Amino acid sequence: MSIQRDGGASPTISEVAAEAGVGRATVARTLGGYGSVSPKTREVVLAAAQRLGYRPNSVARSMSTGETRTLGVVLADVGNPFFAGVLRGIADAARRADYDVLVLSTDEDLAQEAAAIDVLVDKRVDGVILAPAAGRQARMPQIDLLEQRGIPLVLLDRLVDAVTADAVVINNREASREAVASLIEAGHRRIGFVWGPVTTEPAAGADDLRRILDSALWSDGERLLGYLEALEQAGIPFDTSLVTHVAKHESQATRAVLGMLALSDPPTAIFATETDALTGSLRALRQRGLRCPDDVSLIGFDDSSWASVMTPAMSVVAQPMHQLGKLAAECLLARMAGGVAPVATHVLEADFVRRDSVAPPPAN
Amino acid sequence: MSIQRDGGASPTISEVAAEAGVGRATVARTLGGYGSVSPKTREVVLAAAQRLGYRPNSVARSMSTGETRTLGVVLADVGNPFFAGVLRGIADAARRADYDVLVLSTDEDLAQEAAAIDVLVDKRVDGVILAPAAGRQARMPQIDLLEQRGIPLVLLDRLVDAVTADAVVINNREASREAVASLIEAGHRRIGFVWGPVTTEPAAGADDLRRILDSALWSDGERLLGYLEALEQAGIPFDTSLVTHVAKHESQATRAVLGMLALSDPPTAIFATETDALTGSLRALRQRGLRCPDDVSLIGFDDSSWASVMTPAMSVVAQPMHQLGKLAAECLLARMAGGVAPVATHVLEADFVRRDSVAPPPAN
Repeated sequence: MSIQRDGGASPTISEVAAEAGVGRATVARTLGGYGSVSPKTREVVLAAAQRLGYRPNSVARSMSTGETRTLGVVLADVGNPFFAGVLRGIADAARRADYDVLVLSTDEDLAQEAAAIDVLVDKRVDGVILAPAAGRQARMPQIDLLEQRGIPLVLLDRLVDAVTADAVVINNREASREAVASLIEAGHRRIGFVWGPVTTEPAAGADDLRRILDSALWSDGERLLGYLEALEQAGIPFDTSLVTHVAKHESQATRAVLGMLALSDPPTAIFATETDALTGSLRALRQRGLRCPDDVSLIGFDDSSWASVMTPAMSVVAQPMHQLGKLAAECLLARMAGGVAPVATHVLEADFVRRDSVAPPPAN
Repeated sequence: MSIQRDGGASPTISEVAAEAGVGRATVARTLGGYGSVSPKTREVVLAAAQRLGYRPNSVARSMSTGETRTLGVVLADVGNPFFAGVLRGIADAARRADYDVLVLSTDEDLAQEAAAIDVLVDKRVDGVILAPAAGRQARMPQIDLLEQRGIPLVLLDRLVDAVTADAVVINNREASREAVASLIEAGHRRIGFVWGPVTTEPAAGADDLRRILDSALWSDGERLLGYLEALEQAGIPFDTSLVTHVAKHESQATRAVLGMLALSDPPTAIFATETDALTGSLRALRQRGLRCPDDVSLIGFDDSSWASVMTPAMSVVAQPMHQLGKLAAECLLARMAGGVAPVATHVLEADFVRRDSVAPPPAN
């Protein structure tokens, strides 16, 4: 236990001891929360400490308890509305349990992710929530480091085959299959899929695509598998020219959709699996002077106030962002408290919100 | 300096000392970065530490250096797109300087703000960026605590009269005046102001409103003053029924706008000073079956992809969110490095983006 006197604001142990009329060791034991102190002495020391304006030093306290009361969170981008919503859920749950949250962004970069986990280990956080930047078949040596240090881990939004840890995700595949099926039901057979795994070349076919998905982010892969399944169930052949292959920014989504719209047999509907993919698709329609849903139907991913107040209001797959974050934090806190339940993957249901952006395809 | 052996992953000082063939005190001085060690010995110790996989313990290091290499950030809500964008700017600047960011939300609640600053002091952060929940004339005793501890502070987005600290804000008043003036120029004289200071009663008049602003958030007050100035410059009388008084959530903005639209002399244009105020206004127009800009013109605050891809595309006052956060972090880092420049308020210019949501008022 060490009390620093920077700024002169916190008294020394000696000063508290003099005020309380007890020895320094007794004060140290009382304020440090270790060793044996009688209830009455404890009360006297705490009253003296309070009179002098003593403030516990959490850095020093961490040295004696091994706890920093901090959750580490590693995600792609705090500026992204999805992760901002998730983070809010984490922060709310952490606050209720009197924990602080240390947030690091990876920009979906593996080296930044590895560095972020190193930082959190170094900071001695009590637990880690991670939305992995790695594909589902990646090796993640940093995770071993957490395990060696006994730091509990919860995966968020994405699964990694090689990592055995509690996870909180949504039912991406089923939600996507349902959204695409609703487009098919409205009469569409040429359906664009915007966003998804970042590859430099288009897939040669459905089988090639499935192979590519092994190295993709789990959530991206699942959404595309949901799309493929809906097509297969309806007997619609897979057309690689209707699936974006390089799309990481909104402007790339716009360019990809402009390319699809220039096909001799263009899509009459688009399923956009990220907010940026949806706004990028809308921008492409604007540039081509096409109307939604008269010319092209649209379904997006992630709800927002904007999606419901624009004309037409956008149909979307709404992820329970706050709930995702809250549950991830609660799972982590339970593990940190010594919970010994079997490792579990919690799958939350996304909600398909039907609004006005889907209509039958235009008559030729 | 203390090396913990949780999980057995990091060697002890004794082990490093044995590997290097030097004494424990020499290893402690070298790895702790204090005291005197010859360059050659230093090299031998670091090589031995690296061979054994030694990992410095930042909690322990903090005890010896007094640095945690962490910036504390206190803002209203990490889930709000404005603060998410600002936070991204802070995080980017912090990362470049090899600092981590500890984020706490206040929900605009003074007690939560006070608690958040206590937590950051307790965590020994090296500096604090604060978007105060307090009005411009508030007393903020927590700020004194930061000063006593010698922890530098930068105010973000909002000024507080009693606090002398570096600040980074935007030119809220001028930007709002310009936006409202553009509505007046288009022919509008009945202009609603949505959002702003949270009072339980409408203001009795312009003077009463100015008095209320003394206890409002600085940025809210400045935006409303810009609105008043634009009206005064055009000789348009202030009408208290066109200014929202209780509006903290989108649904309240919708209700307030529905109230304005039910007036015998309803507004033909609305200036909405937050994203939620704009989407809430759009929702009210939808509910009343009114079109923008044919029936009601709109100007919002804060840009987003949504604002530019919807029909009509929304004219907005675009705040440089990333730049705000980045500059706040840079100011703080400069102070932490011992910078002695005079305390400064940095005023960034918001950008008025004209799109398609403003038209002349409908002919009666």
